[in-house]
Amino acid sequence: MKILVTGANGFVGVNLTKAMVERGFETHAIVRAASDISPIDKRVHLYRCSTDIELIDYFKKNSFTGVIHLASLVLSSCSSDDILRLIDSNVKFGTLLLEACKLSNVKWFINTGTFWQNYLSEKYNPVNLYAATKEAYEVISKYYTQTSDLIFATLKLNDTYGANDKRNKIINTMLKIAKSGEVLNMSQGEQAIDIVHIDDVVEAYILLAGCLGGANGADFGGKTFAVMADKRLTLKNLVKKFEEIREVKLNINWGALEYREREVMNPCGDYELVPGWRQKVSLEDGIKRL
Amino acid sequence: MKILVTGANGFVGVNLTKAMVERGFETHAIVRAASDISPIDKRVHLYRCSTDIELIDYFKKNSFTGVIHLASLVLSSCSSDDILRLIDSNVKFGTLLLEACKLSNVKWFINTGTFWQNYLSEKYNPVNLYAATKEAYEVISKYYTQTSDLIFATLKLNDTYGANDKRNKIINTMLKIAKSGEVLNMSQGEQAIDIVHIDDVVEAYILLAGCLGGANGADFGGKTFAVMADKRLTLKNLVKKFEEIREVKLNINWGALEYREREVMNPCGDYELVPGWRQKVSLEDGIKRL
Repeated sequence: MKILVTGANGFVGVNLTKAMVERGFETHAIVRAASDISPIDKRVHLYRCSTDIELIDYFKKNSFTGVIHLASLVLSSCSSDDILRLIDSNVKFGTLLLEACKLSNVKWFINTGTFWQNYLSEKYNPVNLYAATKEAYEVISKYYTQTSDLIFATLKLNDTYGANDKRNKIINTMLKIAKSGEVLNMSQGEQAIDIVHIDDVVEAYILLAGCLGGANGADFGGKTFAVMADKRLTLKNLVKKFEEIREVKLNINWGALEYREREVMNPCGDYELVPGWRQKVSLEDGIKRL
Repeated sequence: MKILVTGANGFVGVNLTKAMVERGFETHAIVRAASDISPIDKRVHLYRCSTDIELIDYFKKNSFTGVIHLASLVLSSCSSDDILRLIDSNVKFGTLLLEACKLSNVKWFINTGTFWQNYLSEKYNPVNLYAATKEAYEVISKYYTQTSDLIFATLKLNDTYGANDKRNKIINTMLKIAKSGEVLNMSQGEQAIDIVHIDDVVEAYILLAGCLGGANGADFGGKTFAVMADKRLTLKNLVKKFEEIREVKLNINWGALEYREREVMNPCGDYELVPGWRQKVSLEDGIKRL
């Protein structure tokens, strides 16, 4: 299988593409001209895309079997100026990818979604504009699945963590303040956290790719799957567990901050897991390994 | 009521803004720097927008009561190059409008949809990418209605006609070949046509604006209404009727063309009409008046 990954220089992308080359997939990645490619495994075939016309030619020349679309601009809140960037990254680029897939007969496409599309566990209620652009993109994908044989499925992610994560995320922040001793202001911390180790996330993508690329691939078309933790902890209990496992005491000022507007207190759990997937790395193990 | 109209130099926009000023609405229109404004009634307050930041300032300065969003790039089929323009026009610009509405406390917003969002009368199945961008925009609007008091409703249009229509549409084409005598190649012509006179279309927008701006405006939020003809004719019978009413014979070569990919043979009829609206201009009268 010859697979193209977008967003290969992000946290999930770096880990996923490394695992893919190790398992023998011919792994290609499309990166922006300005992207830092140093974290990407050297065995990944890189393509730096500058214009949109080139993108379609690139697909035609390569005849990819499948696409795993990770590239996304993630903004939990956004100013008016961010709107244009959100739509460019999360709607426009992805639509061009689908057009390129259609014109080059790509067999399947894994899109990445977010639990933020399902505020209050509703079928669709976006936590923020980022989540709205993700849903808008799924809506556009329907045009392509109706007018070509492309099999399109979405994998929804919630929180993820693991070694070498450079993102501004909760586990990283805990590691940082454990080391520096600095005081961190937090909300009351009663929101439930659904967090999964990167190894399990990578496994979910690879399993789903196997489903879509298999003989019954079409059965998975148009479906949404999710990566979900076996257990959820409140933020406060997650911190407690972190402190126990790593034998540290964090200086957290609980209640110093208000909850965010539209804070997700209980992430939607009404999703199907990828067939054959189950969480293998427990939170305890994952935190130890960091 | 101080109302802003986008797409005011289009066929619907020119007629709607003229009717609005005649009924005493303070009518504003936003047009692109390059747009031809000559068909727009001189009593409409025009604003030429060049940058996105200006757009938000413009809204803040004006405190509009409502927005009627007609501007759209309509493409029945599109090349790869058209994709970027479709998303810019039909998703990005509209999202900026909603952001501007939120930041300036606009009360209501009428979006314009299309029957092409409902291929085979499905809840959502886009005939083409244009229709998919229209649906994507409705999805994005939900973020704004969930995070502000904006009342957002969609009015879906099918075919429209009337005097001084410069678009490349069926009634115009008939007028043209009736005059020139030229031969026109057509499909078999069995597709049902839902076509409404511009005066009735204008009335639908004005009635809906009244609903949204009224005491119970919030009851209409999130709803979709449609402008639909009392009766539908097949394209073949529409041509026959045109010939009878205007006492001409058109040179049409029926069956010379294939139907379009995803031709709509029977437009979706599963919509709610705008409360209080009914078709006043019969097809006979409308064709006579041309």
